[in-house]
Amino acid sequence: MIKAGIIGVTGYAGQELFSLLLNHPEVEVSFVTSRSYGGKPLRQVYGNYFNITSVNCKDNYLDFNNLDLDVLFIALPHGLASEIITQEFIRKFKIIDLGADYRFKDNKVYEDWYNTEHKNTSLLKYAVYGLCELNRELIKNSSLVANPGCYTTCSILSLAPLVKEGVINNRSIIIDAKSGVSGAGRGVNLNTHYAECNESVKAYKIASHRHTPEIEEQLSYLAKENFNIVFTPHLVPMNRGILVTAYAELNKELDYDEVKSIYEKYYKYEHFIRLLPKEVFPNTKWVKGSNYIDINFKIDKRTNRIIVIGAIDNLVKGAAGQAVQNMNILFNLKETTGLKRIPLFP
Amino acid sequence: MIKAGIIGVTGYAGQELFSLLLNHPEVEVSFVTSRSYGGKPLRQVYGNYFNITSVNCKDNYLDFNNLDLDVLFIALPHGLASEIITQEFIRKFKIIDLGADYRFKDNKVYEDWYNTEHKNTSLLKYAVYGLCELNRELIKNSSLVANPGCYTTCSILSLAPLVKEGVINNRSIIIDAKSGVSGAGRGVNLNTHYAECNESVKAYKIASHRHTPEIEEQLSYLAKENFNIVFTPHLVPMNRGILVTAYAELNKELDYDEVKSIYEKYYKYEHFIRLLPKEVFPNTKWVKGSNYIDINFKIDKRTNRIIVIGAIDNLVKGAAGQAVQNMNILFNLKETTGLKRIPLFP
Amino acid sequence: MIKAGIIGVTGYAGQELFSLLLNHPEVEVSFVTSRSYGGKPLRQVYGNYFNITSVNCKDNYLDFNNLDLDVLFIALPHGLASEIITQEFIRKFKIIDLGADYRFKDNKVYEDWYNTEHKNTSLLKYAVYGLCELNRELIKNSSLVANPGCYTTCSILSLAPLVKEGVINNRSIIIDAKSGVSGAGRGVNLNTHYAECNESVKAYKIASHRHTPEIEEQLSYLAKENFNIVFTPHLVPMNRGILVTAYAELNKELDYDEVKSIYEKYYKYEHFIRLLPKEVFPNTKWVKGSNYIDINFKIDKRTNRIIVIGAIDNLVKGAAGQAVQNMNILFNLKETTGLKRIPLFP
Amino acid sequence: MIKAGIIGVTGYAGQELFSLLLNHPEVEVSFVTSRSYGGKPLRQVYGNYFNITSVNCKDNYLDFNNLDLDVLFIALPHGLASEIITQEFIRKFKIIDLGADYRFKDNKVYEDWYNTEHKNTSLLKYAVYGLCELNRELIKNSSLVANPGCYTTCSILSLAPLVKEGVINNRSIIIDAKSGVSGAGRGVNLNTHYAECNESVKAYKIASHRHTPEIEEQLSYLAKENFNIVFTPHLVPMNRGILVTAYAELNKELDYDEVKSIYEKYYKYEHFIRLLPKEVFPNTKWVKGSNYIDINFKIDKRTNRIIVIGAIDNLVKGAAGQAVQNMNILFNLKETTGLKRIPLFP
Repeated sequence: MIKAGIIGVTGYAGQELFSLLLNHPEVEVSFVTSRSYGGKPLRQVYGNYFNITSVNCKDNYLDFNNLDLDVLFIALPHGLASEIITQEFIRKFKIIDLGADYRFKDNKVYEDWYNTEHKNTSLLKYAVYGLCELNRELIKNSSLVANPGCYTTCSILSLAPLVKEGVINNRSIIIDAKSGVSGAGRGVNLNTHYAECNESVKAYKIASHRHTPEIEEQLSYLAKENFNIVFTPHLVPMNRGILVTAYAELNKELDYDEVKSIYEKYYKYEHFIRLLPKEVFPNTKWVKGSNYIDINFKIDKRTNRIIVIGAIDNLVKGAAGQAVQNMNILFNLKETTGLKRIPLFP
Repeated sequence: MIKAGIIGVTGYAGQELFSLLLNHPEVEVSFVTSRSYGGKPLRQVYGNYFNITSVNCKDNYLDFNNLDLDVLFIALPHGLASEIITQEFIRKFKIIDLGADYRFKDNKVYEDWYNTEHKNTSLLKYAVYGLCELNRELIKNSSLVANPGCYTTCSILSLAPLVKEGVINNRSIIIDAKSGVSGAGRGVNLNTHYAECNESVKAYKIASHRHTPEIEEQLSYLAKENFNIVFTPHLVPMNRGILVTAYAELNKELDYDEVKSIYEKYYKYEHFIRLLPKEVFPNTKWVKGSNYIDINFKIDKRTNRIIVIGAIDNLVKGAAGQAVQNMNILFNLKETTGLKRIPLFP
Repeated sequence: MIKAGIIGVTGYAGQELFSLLLNHPEVEVSFVTSRSYGGKPLRQVYGNYFNITSVNCKDNYLDFNNLDLDVLFIALPHGLASEIITQEFIRKFKIIDLGADYRFKDNKVYEDWYNTEHKNTSLLKYAVYGLCELNRELIKNSSLVANPGCYTTCSILSLAPLVKEGVINNRSIIIDAKSGVSGAGRGVNLNTHYAECNESVKAYKIASHRHTPEIEEQLSYLAKENFNIVFTPHLVPMNRGILVTAYAELNKELDYDEVKSIYEKYYKYEHFIRLLPKEVFPNTKWVKGSNYIDINFKIDKRTNRIIVIGAIDNLVKGAAGQAVQNMNILFNLKETTGLKRIPLFP
Repeated sequence: MIKAGIIGVTGYAGQELFSLLLNHPEVEVSFVTSRSYGGKPLRQVYGNYFNITSVNCKDNYLDFNNLDLDVLFIALPHGLASEIITQEFIRKFKIIDLGADYRFKDNKVYEDWYNTEHKNTSLLKYAVYGLCELNRELIKNSSLVANPGCYTTCSILSLAPLVKEGVINNRSIIIDAKSGVSGAGRGVNLNTHYAECNESVKAYKIASHRHTPEIEEQLSYLAKENFNIVFTPHLVPMNRGILVTAYAELNKELDYDEVKSIYEKYYKYEHFIRLLPKEVFPNTKWVKGSNYIDINFKIDKRTNRIIVIGAIDNLVKGAAGQAVQNMNILFNLKETTGLKRIPLFP
């Protein structure tokens, strides 16, 4: 059995991860920590765990030296993982960081967009960007996996084949994303107050959201050129789910089947990527609770644009599910192990 | 492997059942039928099944004589199962009926409340009421299990220990229930139109809902006396979940711990019944997607009343999950097999 | 024009009141205050007021002596109004307090349930309970009106005719109430966090909610006897609205028309009370944004119970609308002045 | 008093219109019709009207010749108004058509996109496109006003100043729109079934929605050149509201203040257009129930794009409110008459 620890179990991503690991046949959870609820039984923080687990949240300041551990998941706000992780860590066990600290190769980008100094740049060279379907081979041999952001996972997977094949004008990419409220975390504030965000749709952090450079860096690798994109996130009154609507100019005239074959070239054998049938478009509802990303596209001949739609569950493929998928890769398990949840409908 | 068939897979209960059986380690689904979508792949009716199953919905008029089957689930509106099931059926395979036709021992009650004639009363004597925690022993040896209604499951389990021990005035029982909209099924009408039931709470079928006599019959067995109750269902703007708030007069002064010990007497070893800690009250959110029922109560000394709260997922413990639990009992499997879903939060 | 001030304009009740007064033909708002947003333009706190008003929120510590004012509305948490109001106040202008401080004649009840000492009991004798339809004559000559709570308004108006006519067993009254989340106010906490209360129904403060004694005191006046009731509030995922489902034993056999005539005796000429047609039951949606209360009932002959349903908009008839109605009474205006909003549907 | 009739009062737009006209000081509603509910009192179709109106819905086949009428509102699906309206109509009274039949100058566009033959093209020359802020002068002298669509109102007003001043590349325009479910009308189907669209976001009619050519035609007039745009509507789980996020390339470098002054040039004195302060972005919640459109924009220097956000209530400024505004223009009333609703929050 793989011995796993979770730092930051009481955020939404952390608890989703705990839920997945509990039902994972090859894992046992050794410990979980929480800055806010240290000392409390998890079932008091999340009532769904009554009678399911009696685990207590430790506080975050464990003695990491004495841990008998195979893999450490870190689900903390940015800036904290880089304070915790040392070189010794990555020698002793695998680390999967759900935060942003190790997602950027170009540290200046991180420091600019996150408006902070990186706490431990010496480890950046070990980090692999954990977008499983694109970086599987690199992940296998890594010890420090930077689990991608929710918007980024959905955006990059939706566009990667087009960018890789050079069929779109990369500088024309516009990503209009819609997220459920759990994406904002469990911290209380007026933005996530029920009566304020129910019966409401709004854009936020327009042209300034921190997932923008993450999408740009990864797509630029695929394209082998640097470029900027427009990214606009929106808050939508639902609990879970991200829908990405991406727009780009086509470099040449292509019909549906030609583009479909490009997607199939990359994704045909990907278990968690579902290319929907023609004219069937993704709906966050069809992926809820699961690790799937649903993708389809439409070509608008009148404007020479392609419109790509992608949908994920932000807490699963956009966070905890992908973290488990990364763990499966790291430990040479079947990638779908412990990730067989069928989307919960309705 | 147990060979299972589902009649009526494209209702919400039917598709939930299919989802549970797909992940059940001892079951293979032989066929599924649908009156509305006969001939169509299920994944076209429910997009959550893309890439997961290629099963086609047969129409409902199978040749049941040639079925190689161990268990047949029927998820149809009342009045239809009794048309389909014959004595030969129950000799050849186990039947679990999610509808109302075989729930009543007193057929007159059925015919009065459902305003219809029963199509096959000759089989009533074989039917067992499939409320697993109360009728486990009877179910084991049955061939025709009448799976309880959603409101009834939640109401009866919430009150059974009190009724059985005679500590409340049965004639004082009032059940005020709140249900998510999936309980109304997938059939379209103005009552379930989004803009009509969003931002809205209302009572319906006040003192006339068909689950009333079902609750009464079962509680009367437990009490060994006949009595009527008040039952008021409400429609609440959410997808899943039932919350039951039940009120009754106490026959004598009891404190929290005394009543708790009554509940523990019956439920302590029940996996799917969670008696919450003192002053923690059920929330439909804590059971979503799972087969649990959460129960707790409060004693109001000022009025000599006990207020019992129960919560279930109407599509799981209130329908498909309990059907699987019944199947597990029928086939002598561990009762929790295939029912390990942790409640999905948030 | 009536000169009005609002203390506590940035709570949900306060801002609703401001909205109503802005469109009131006989009122001009002289000033508004806010503890949390003192100094800020109201339109920065509530974006709905862009271009509508440039009013700034003063802080709460006005020099009340120099106010040129006809009526002062106070929309603060309990315990604060009684600190502010002095005898001089009620000589100089009318006061309508939306909080609890002056709702109870029996101060011990207030102090017990609110777990606090009353700050100024000397004014209690001047206070009138501002449930307009029941206390209209008293209100007219008062200077200090205690505006009722939201649950209480809906509960009392739903039951008053039955209690007054003595046709129900008062000790059998059970009130099961369901409220939208705006009833919990604008303060942020986990209970009102979107992802926590969306897709969720739960009971709270069972047999211990502070509106219980308020309902009891007022119904006891009407009944001319003291009695206790059971009151259970529930939180429902919607913004606005309260639905009350009240249960009581009938003292004698009555049919629908007989009870209807009792309701008509008291409410026939009440503009804001709508007795719905037989078998049409209140829905919070039908009163949203308006000052109406919709009421209907059902007699359950099987159990000799009457089930009464009432629905209001908690922020209008349950708070700000009733406050304006009280003001209209105080200033001898037509009671409907400024309260002509048609319920906003859907 | 202006005598008004409403054809099609029982759709959501029709009933909103009725609600506005009821509170309009210069209007009396002479009659209302309904294809689905002919003969029924409106209050039975929409419970919000209990005690407010006793008007009965006539069926749609009135004898229009004998109508004593000043203005006729038609709120029917496309294809029906052109069957009803004759030349005599527009001589006898003003017509405001909320449907699409008279919105297009280029009838071929209508017939292509609506896949139908126009029933009466002879009246097209009389029709004026009723986007009040842009066509006020033309509307004044018209007898047949084509009230714009909901998406189109929000899209055109959001972009008009930029297009008119030629500061953006018109061929780069992408409009990503999000609508509440009431926009889909009151007709029941699986798309608007509560459990199907709650907890769900999806795009629909991608690059093929019928509001696309309407936006194009109007923007092309303003630009004095023809061009196509990309338009993608999305369905969002809320009752009311449309948010438009529009993207375009800037033709030259402009800063926020320069663009702001362009918007102010056109909209500064427009009562119903609110240009929000810098960095404050529209939220459907801030306009709910009102006739306002809120607009703001952000310049993304990295990509040389402008992102414009607009928000309206689809049933008010997007339908019934604008219809009343058009009526006010036609009858030389103050444009805000009867449209003073403050946005209902929350």
